[in-house]
Amino acid sequence: MARIGVIGAGAVGCYYGALLSRAGHDVRFLMRRDLDAVRARGLRVESPLGNFALPDVAAFATPGEIGACDWVVCSLKTTALAEARRLVEPCLGPATRIVALMNGLGVEEAFAWAGPGRVFGAMAFVCINRGEPGVVRHLEYGRVNIGHVLDDPGECEALRALFASGGIDVVVAPNLRYARWEKLCWNIPFNGLSVAGGGIGTKAIVTDPWLRATAGQAMREVVAAGNAELAALGSAARLDEPEIVDRMFMLTDTMGDYNTSMAIDYVSGRPLEVETILGNPLRRAQELGVAMPAVQALYAVVRAADARVRGTMPTIAPERV
Amino acid sequence: MARIGVIGAGAVGCYYGALLSRAGHDVRFLMRRDLDAVRARGLRVESPLGNFALPDVAAFATPGEIGACDWVVCSLKTTALAEARRLVEPCLGPATRIVALMNGLGVEEAFAWAGPGRVFGAMAFVCINRGEPGVVRHLEYGRVNIGHVLDDPGECEALRALFASGGIDVVVAPNLRYARWEKLCWNIPFNGLSVAGGGIGTKAIVTDPWLRATAGQAMREVVAAGNAELAALGSAARLDEPEIVDRMFMLTDTMGDYNTSMAIDYVSGRPLEVETILGNPLRRAQELGVAMPAVQALYAVVRAADARVRGTMPTIAPERV
Repeated sequence: MARIGVIGAGAVGCYYGALLSRAGHDVRFLMRRDLDAVRARGLRVESPLGNFALPDVAAFATPGEIGACDWVVCSLKTTALAEARRLVEPCLGPATRIVALMNGLGVEEAFAWAGPGRVFGAMAFVCINRGEPGVVRHLEYGRVNIGHVLDDPGECEALRALFASGGIDVVVAPNLRYARWEKLCWNIPFNGLSVAGGGIGTKAIVTDPWLRATAGQAMREVVAAGNAELAALGSAARLDEPEIVDRMFMLTDTMGDYNTSMAIDYVSGRPLEVETILGNPLRRAQELGVAMPAVQALYAVVRAADARVRGTMPTIAPERV
Repeated sequence: MARIGVIGAGAVGCYYGALLSRAGHDVRFLMRRDLDAVRARGLRVESPLGNFALPDVAAFATPGEIGACDWVVCSLKTTALAEARRLVEPCLGPATRIVALMNGLGVEEAFAWAGPGRVFGAMAFVCINRGEPGVVRHLEYGRVNIGHVLDDPGECEALRALFASGGIDVVVAPNLRYARWEKLCWNIPFNGLSVAGGGIGTKAIVTDPWLRATAGQAMREVVAAGNAELAALGSAARLDEPEIVDRMFMLTDTMGDYNTSMAIDYVSGRPLEVETILGNPLRRAQELGVAMPAVQALYAVVRAADARVRGTMPTIAPERV
């Protein structure tokens, strides 16, 4: 059994941490909003796969209390990536491995100070929302794609075995960048349009013909950019455009009306993960000479939404009649 | 002196109607919101070119009271184009000419029932807003580009002379479709982004690097679509891409922080002119085989904003903490 620190206990961190804890690992959560509730009542997961409760959860307010772990799973909101070192470093021993369980690009880069050999990336394809404090609502899906910054097969196997021991559906990606771009094929259109559409669910996007067309266009742009990067890295792996686009729409068509975390942040007036999900991929594509006109439009619009949330882009006054 | 019916007395109709009235024409306004105020106190134009007031204005509630005119200037909001025939037809005599003084595509088409020989299109490049009832605030610019549905030079000259008699800066376009697409080079990016950005002014668009880049991309797509249509029509006229893009940005960079009519409609909770400004040009481009990925994204997002305003696309609930 491993000692695992979960840094950033939002819906994703709580859910996967709870699965690993249920399997017997010594999981220690760094919590903020839910700290008091979890200390008092533990953690509860509601899921179509079966509800379960963890009455005794090791929840802490500071990483120093967690101490050195075998694994650190970092699932911070990426708007807080600048805090990652301060929050993760106290949990490191000489052999601790770090899993960046977050979406977007520019995520593992926040752990460059730790050296690449012990840094992993992980992306969860899961529909999950926070409930009341101490409750996580798992709705659908749950697969985790993993990779290692140096794409080391032995290291990937170690992380795969860890997640599998928690009953997690885990897949080692052809390489880490492939996994990141593949996941962006969902996050860019659906996180982007859920905010650009004013705070809407996935059902509105897939059923509106023009939002759906824009999602498809954005996906094709992401595939092109991802493949340009894979080629530039000398990787033989390629994102298969019709297969991925069809799969992302099929998964989204058949899921319930899901509220993306970015849409929830937007309507709740919180900063958006706009740079890792949209800005960094767009800038990488530009470096590679790949045009992303629809993604650029989404980035500009979501960036404006983020600026409104932060109070730095005022809106005009309504007309008095 | 001509008898001129102004159907749809928003900011644009009131402003140009007032200029023609001041020059001595018999201008009759169909009014709704401003009717009582204008009957009581007349019409007042505030402008850096000089304020002026028209104490006695012929303002009517129904087109039947206006009667047959020499010219009908129709400046309805294009969301009301289905009302155009009902509102314009009572003002027609055997030789009445109709000027569709509105932006976008699909505008003259609302007058097909009148026969093409007497239908004109006109687009105003003007910064103008409504003030309190009976007051129009002219801020900047004012040129009107005109064309005739059959591109008849003699007819164009008749309309040019009419507008010029009111001191209006009027230019006969190379042809009507050229004029419509050229104006869309401004309306699509700036109306579109002013709403997609959440209800923001032009200054926010031109000073934010990504909104500005998106505006430029959208303009280039509009130029390509417009030129494809001009080629398909057998016209030798072409929109000159660097010249138009530079000019639209220069005009917008040097204007004050202007609130587009679409942004004002949006923050005021009113339906948006989304189909004439965005939807019809996009569909025309698709027919011509021209891709408009950024414009499509803007259309999808503004269409969602319009659906929110109309109450047909609900937004999700904020997270309770």
